[in-house]
Amino acid sequence: MKIKRALISVYDKKNIKPLLNILSKLKVDLISSGGTYKKIKKLGFKCQEVSDFTNSPEILEGRVKTLHPKIYGGILSKRNNKLHKKELKKNKFKEIDLIVVNFYPFEEVLNKKNVHSKIIENIDVGGPSMVRAAAKNYNFVTVVTNPNQYSRLIEELKKNNGKTTLNFRQLLSSEAFLETGYYDSVISNYFNKLSKNQFTEKKIFHGNLIENFRYGENPHQKGAIYSTNSKADIIQINGKKLSYNNYNDIFSAIAISNSLPKNKGTVIIKHANPCGVSINKNKLTSFKEAFSCDPISAFGGVISFNFKINKKVALELKKIFIEVVIAKGFEKSALKILKNRKKLRIIDSKNLNSDKNLNAKYNLNSIMLQESDTKMFSKNNFHIVSKKKPNNKIFNNLIFAFNICRFVKSNAIVLAKGNSIIGIGSGQPSRIDSCKIAIDKMKQFQNVKYEDEIVAASDAFFPFVDGIETLVQSGVRAIIQPSGSIRDKEIIKFANETGTILVFSKTRHFKH
Amino acid sequence: MKIKRALISVYDKKNIKPLLNILSKLKVDLISSGGTYKKIKKLGFKCQEVSDFTNSPEILEGRVKTLHPKIYGGILSKRNNKLHKKELKKNKFKEIDLIVVNFYPFEEVLNKKNVHSKIIENIDVGGPSMVRAAAKNYNFVTVVTNPNQYSRLIEELKKNNGKTTLNFRQLLSSEAFLETGYYDSVISNYFNKLSKNQFTEKKIFHGNLIENFRYGENPHQKGAIYSTNSKADIIQINGKKLSYNNYNDIFSAIAISNSLPKNKGTVIIKHANPCGVSINKNKLTSFKEAFSCDPISAFGGVISFNFKINKKVALELKKIFIEVVIAKGFEKSALKILKNRKKLRIIDSKNLNSDKNLNAKYNLNSIMLQESDTKMFSKNNFHIVSKKKPNNKIFNNLIFAFNICRFVKSNAIVLAKGNSIIGIGSGQPSRIDSCKIAIDKMKQFQNVKYEDEIVAASDAFFPFVDGIETLVQSGVRAIIQPSGSIRDKEIIKFANETGTILVFSKTRHFKH
Repeated sequence: MKIKRALISVYDKKNIKPLLNILSKLKVDLISSGGTYKKIKKLGFKCQEVSDFTNSPEILEGRVKTLHPKIYGGILSKRNNKLHKKELKKNKFKEIDLIVVNFYPFEEVLNKKNVHSKIIENIDVGGPSMVRAAAKNYNFVTVVTNPNQYSRLIEELKKNNGKTTLNFRQLLSSEAFLETGYYDSVISNYFNKLSKNQFTEKKIFHGNLIENFRYGENPHQKGAIYSTNSKADIIQINGKKLSYNNYNDIFSAIAISNSLPKNKGTVIIKHANPCGVSINKNKLTSFKEAFSCDPISAFGGVISFNFKINKKVALELKKIFIEVVIAKGFEKSALKILKNRKKLRIIDSKNLNSDKNLNAKYNLNSIMLQESDTKMFSKNNFHIVSKKKPNNKIFNNLIFAFNICRFVKSNAIVLAKGNSIIGIGSGQPSRIDSCKIAIDKMKQFQNVKYEDEIVAASDAFFPFVDGIETLVQSGVRAIIQPSGSIRDKEIIKFANETGTILVFSKTRHFKH
Repeated sequence: MKIKRALISVYDKKNIKPLLNILSKLKVDLISSGGTYKKIKKLGFKCQEVSDFTNSPEILEGRVKTLHPKIYGGILSKRNNKLHKKELKKNKFKEIDLIVVNFYPFEEVLNKKNVHSKIIENIDVGGPSMVRAAAKNYNFVTVVTNPNQYSRLIEELKKNNGKTTLNFRQLLSSEAFLETGYYDSVISNYFNKLSKNQFTEKKIFHGNLIENFRYGENPHQKGAIYSTNSKADIIQINGKKLSYNNYNDIFSAIAISNSLPKNKGTVIIKHANPCGVSINKNKLTSFKEAFSCDPISAFGGVISFNFKINKKVALELKKIFIEVVIAKGFEKSALKILKNRKKLRIIDSKNLNSDKNLNAKYNLNSIMLQESDTKMFSKNNFHIVSKKKPNNKIFNNLIFAFNICRFVKSNAIVLAKGNSIIGIGSGQPSRIDSCKIAIDKMKQFQNVKYEDEIVAASDAFFPFVDGIETLVQSGVRAIIQPSGSIRDKEIIKFANETGTILVFSKTRHFKH
């Protein structure tokens, strides 16, 4: 299709000059309005105003400019249809072959936290309508929605003497519908958030490409990461490119870090499960305790601190091999030490806004959507059901273990002493297996004494006494678990007979 | 806002009469065109044609009808703005207070696998434009996009004497943008599929609510499931409502079932991991072998057959407690037996189309998108690196185990004999732990003999010899694993020294 007439209406006027240059060389008639019209004239090109072209005034402060049959007849007519040709002629309508439009910056205005009325004013009506019409009629019409596409259009026009190919137009058409769908997804999500309606009858998710990975979970799978925020939340300040699996571990790490008391927590992740967690006012101790839970698994892991890293911690980190370090900022001297390792991925999570409370899985034509398990715990959430009562220290340790437990893949058993995890049993089909794995891990790296007051947490109820029996026999003195088994009474009885502290939570915490 | 004038243009004419009744009672002027106009007249209501209202003919076979400033001025004017009022008066435009529109059935036409040109013709241009204009101006205009909303509108008009409240209009506006965003998401995904461009700069996912769950992964989390197909793929024919965790297990089960040779495979899932898999021509044997891998974990699990269930299998199933049975159809007598258990969830997967090859996770403002790990295996994908070579039977068993391995959460070790899984080690931060867990499981339920020719598969390479050593010491005679460790040579040497068969794959299969 030879381009004879173009309508240009762009909020973002970037890169427009080279495009105008070639259109002018090709003697394409230009139609435009408002700011774009002024810009084109200022750059010294010939251009007709939309209101001149339609012979209809621009009204309602620009709300109605291009919404006119002369524009839409020009865009939507099938060039190979005799009736269409006749109707155009009869009405003195002219074909419009190229639409260059980008929209009011709704998302940008939204992200700048403007007032509602200003946000609404930035819902573009005319732009998306023209773009959709042109995209529908891609058999004849070329549509461009983003300044980044101009160079491709220029190249295409040069290559084909002012024409575009069908393939090219179809590709632009698919990009155009992506643009309009994305635009309305952002608007719709904004409205639904206002009305707190998250589980709507229809649901749209949108993302902006942050990066294509070298590959996904495995080298034979393509993969990419998108942000629903239009910008990357995770800022990398050093090291090799992050992989799919790095990101996956980082998300696990950050979820746990955010759940810990501020400025105290260290988390180590391997294969999306924690393999070490500790909270301690002393940053170095926090790190050392987390690491000592399972120093072997920590090798090549992801480590996340919910505090600013100081030199002491950086010097300790130097001694071990990890793939990713995440922290809420870095002291200068610490960063210098860490950056010595060129490949080490360093992430500053200082600006990470993680108040989103939904998660979703898409698989086999289905999207499973749910609120995230971010419920905060207090002692009121728990019942002490054993005769023996926990002192404050043990109770706090139980709550600490229970909190970590919900971030471990089910069935999950977590052992802790003094606000550090010392054994984790994850991802097993039966609870007793998870108990055994947690205990084996503890025995492998800890020298457990009675005074350690070891506690255990379970993400769901124990179906039988055997799990608790195994834990108690290995030195566990206090257990926290959601109740709900038909054998709860038996389990309480066993706890009382063995002098074990038993606490029931009101909430279950599966994670898969 | 009192409604004085309404524009009605609906492809789906369902439920329109009661709405027309009340609008007529309230003396609302109606404008319409085409089929809707005819329908309104036929039902005996007064109505003006759009072309009469705009004084502009309908052209291009209906492609341009409502795209006119008189329509858009009427929709978009701010009723409390003097300039807007003046401009409307000057141009003899009239306010339009209610838009009742639904779109050409793009998705329906698409799902019916029509030809491309027909699909494209069903991209509605006029409808979404009017809806978006009305939704933007919800301060003054009421917009309805779906026949299911009519009863709410009727109620609202009755309650407020022909007016609508701002809250009501805002809610409808949010539903309208959901509708337009969803519509363009479907179009865009169609185009991107044509151009095989899956990892686009912007990305939109859309879903239709299949059902709200009683709760998500846990009782304190809301949850729902959506279908990207506009219909449920998973057909439940008996039993209690499926839960979030049921679905999650079902997806795991179906992915494995689909990967097995047709009409032979049984899979048992617990906590999204397999705890039993077998392939056997004899259906009953297939089930029994799968079940015997871990009869304790199978309790309360999800079981999936990639064949039609017969009476024999149904009678065996009667003996155990499971939550969900999935099969490619059921013989009548089998279904009767299964349905005796009223609560048992029964799923027919016969019509399940699972050729979608992407999966995604949404979490903390990020969407991780990747191709699914559905690569098919043949012997050419593998190198035999040990001196001892596998016979056909052992090689097939190795490939069977390796295939299952990729569906087990990493680090994964899978033990098999005779095309049945006999031990699984899942979800561990270190590979040696997964080896130990798989072996413990095998020893718990199997009486292993040398003649059993037990094989092991690992989803990623062994970093040290210790894992393989543990396996071989427990009777494993052939091992398959992706290569890539700096200790590969050491591992080959160990295999040769112990007469173990060692096969390297070209692919790694992490899953988290």
